[in-house]
Amino acid sequence: MNGKFIVIEGLEGAGKSTAIATVLDTLAARGITDIQSTREPGGTPLAEQMRSLVKEGHPEEPLTDMAELLLLYAARSQLVENVIKPALQAGEWVVGDRHDMSSQAYQGGGRGFDAKLMSQLKTMVLGDFEPDLTIYMDIDPELGLSRARGRGALDRIEKMDLSFFERTRERFLALSRNNPKVVMIDASQSLEAVTSDIRQQLNTWLAQQESA
Amino acid sequence: MNGKFIVIEGLEGAGKSTAIATVLDTLAARGITDIQSTREPGGTPLAEQMRSLVKEGHPEEPLTDMAELLLLYAARSQLVENVIKPALQAGEWVVGDRHDMSSQAYQGGGRGFDAKLMSQLKTMVLGDFEPDLTIYMDIDPELGLSRARGRGALDRIEKMDLSFFERTRERFLALSRNNPKVVMIDASQSLEAVTSDIRQQLNTWLAQQESA
Repeated sequence: MNGKFIVIEGLEGAGKSTAIATVLDTLAARGITDIQSTREPGGTPLAEQMRSLVKEGHPEEPLTDMAELLLLYAARSQLVENVIKPALQAGEWVVGDRHDMSSQAYQGGGRGFDAKLMSQLKTMVLGDFEPDLTIYMDIDPELGLSRARGRGALDRIEKMDLSFFERTRERFLALSRNNPKVVMIDASQSLEAVTSDIRQQLNTWLAQQESA
Repeated sequence: MNGKFIVIEGLEGAGKSTAIATVLDTLAARGITDIQSTREPGGTPLAEQMRSLVKEGHPEEPLTDMAELLLLYAARSQLVENVIKPALQAGEWVVGDRHDMSSQAYQGGGRGFDAKLMSQLKTMVLGDFEPDLTIYMDIDPELGLSRARGRGALDRIEKMDLSFFERTRERFLALSRNNPKVVMIDASQSLEAVTSDIRQQLNTWLAQQESA
C-alpha cells in the first residue's frame, strides 16, 4: 500500500515545527513509524541550493518575483520526484513542512501573481499530485511575526511588510475553507490547545482512512 | 531611442563565439559601440548560480527535466529584467549568446516538453519581449559536437546522445524557417565564408533598420 502525504502549512510563527512534532507523535501512537520528514523549499541537495537563492538572494542584484516563483517550483519538482513520490510508492508516509499551498498563498496572494498563471504552473510541475491531508495553522500575521522575529536574523521573505503577510493569510484561508483535504487549526491558542486540536483532527482523519 | 537586441543561437560547436565577434565588429564598423554582451543561461550574479545548477547538476541527485526548464527561465527572468531591458531602454545594444530559442529547441525539441507548456512558460516569463534579430548558426550535430568536444570536459547537456541534438536541431530549423526575425547561417562552411555571410546578412538588416 502507498503511504500518505501530510503537509503542515502556515505563516511564520504559526508553530509549524511544534505541529510537525505532534503529527509524528500521533502517527507513532498508531504504529506508523516509517516516515520521511521534508521541508520546502528544499529537502534535497539541489533543492536546498535553490532554497538558498530564494532565502538569501544576492547583495547586488534583486531576485525577480518571477525567478523566485520558478525557483520554488524547480525545488518542488526535485523534492516531489526524487523524495516524496518514491517514499509514498515504497509505502512510507511523508510529513512535509510546507508544499504547494505556500506558493499559492505567498506568491499568488502575497506577491499578487494571477490565478491563471499560478494554476498553469502548478499543473505543469505537479499534474494532479497533491497532499492527502494539509494541516493549516492559522495565525494573525502580527502575532506570528512577533513570535518568528524573536528567533533571530530575518531572511528575504521575513523582511516583507505586514500587508504582504495579510494578503498571504487571506489566500491561505481561502484555500482552506470548504476544502475537505484541509483542516484548519487556530494557532493563536495556547500550545496545549493547539497540540490537542491537531491530535484530535489527525486521529479523526486517520480513523476515516482506515475505514475507507 | 531604444537599442536593439541581437541573439546568436545554435548547437554546441556551431561557432557562436566567432559569430558574436563578427557581429560586434560589424556593429562597430557602423559606429555602434555602446553594446552589452550577455550569455544564457547566466549573465547576472544570480543567473550564473542558476547556470551552475543546470550545467553541473549534483553528483548524487538527478536534476529533473522540469527543474532544469524552470531554472533556465528563472535565470532568463533575472537577465532580461536586470540587464537586457535596462540596457535597451538606455539606448544600448545587446548582443546575446543564446536566448529563448535555445529553450524552445533544447527543452521543447530535445527533451520533448509539449508545445503548449513551452508556450505558456515563455508568455509567463517574457510576455511579448523578444530579440529584434536572431542569427541561427545551423550545423549538423555530429560535426558540431566533434568540434565542441575538442574543447575539454563535457557538462551535463554536452553529454546527451546524438539523437537529443538531432531533435534540438530540428526544432531550431523549424523555428528559423519563414521567420522574418531570424537569419540562418550555414555554419558548416569555412570560417571565412561563415564570417562573410554573417557580415552581409547583418549589414542588410541594419540598412533595413535605418531606412525603417
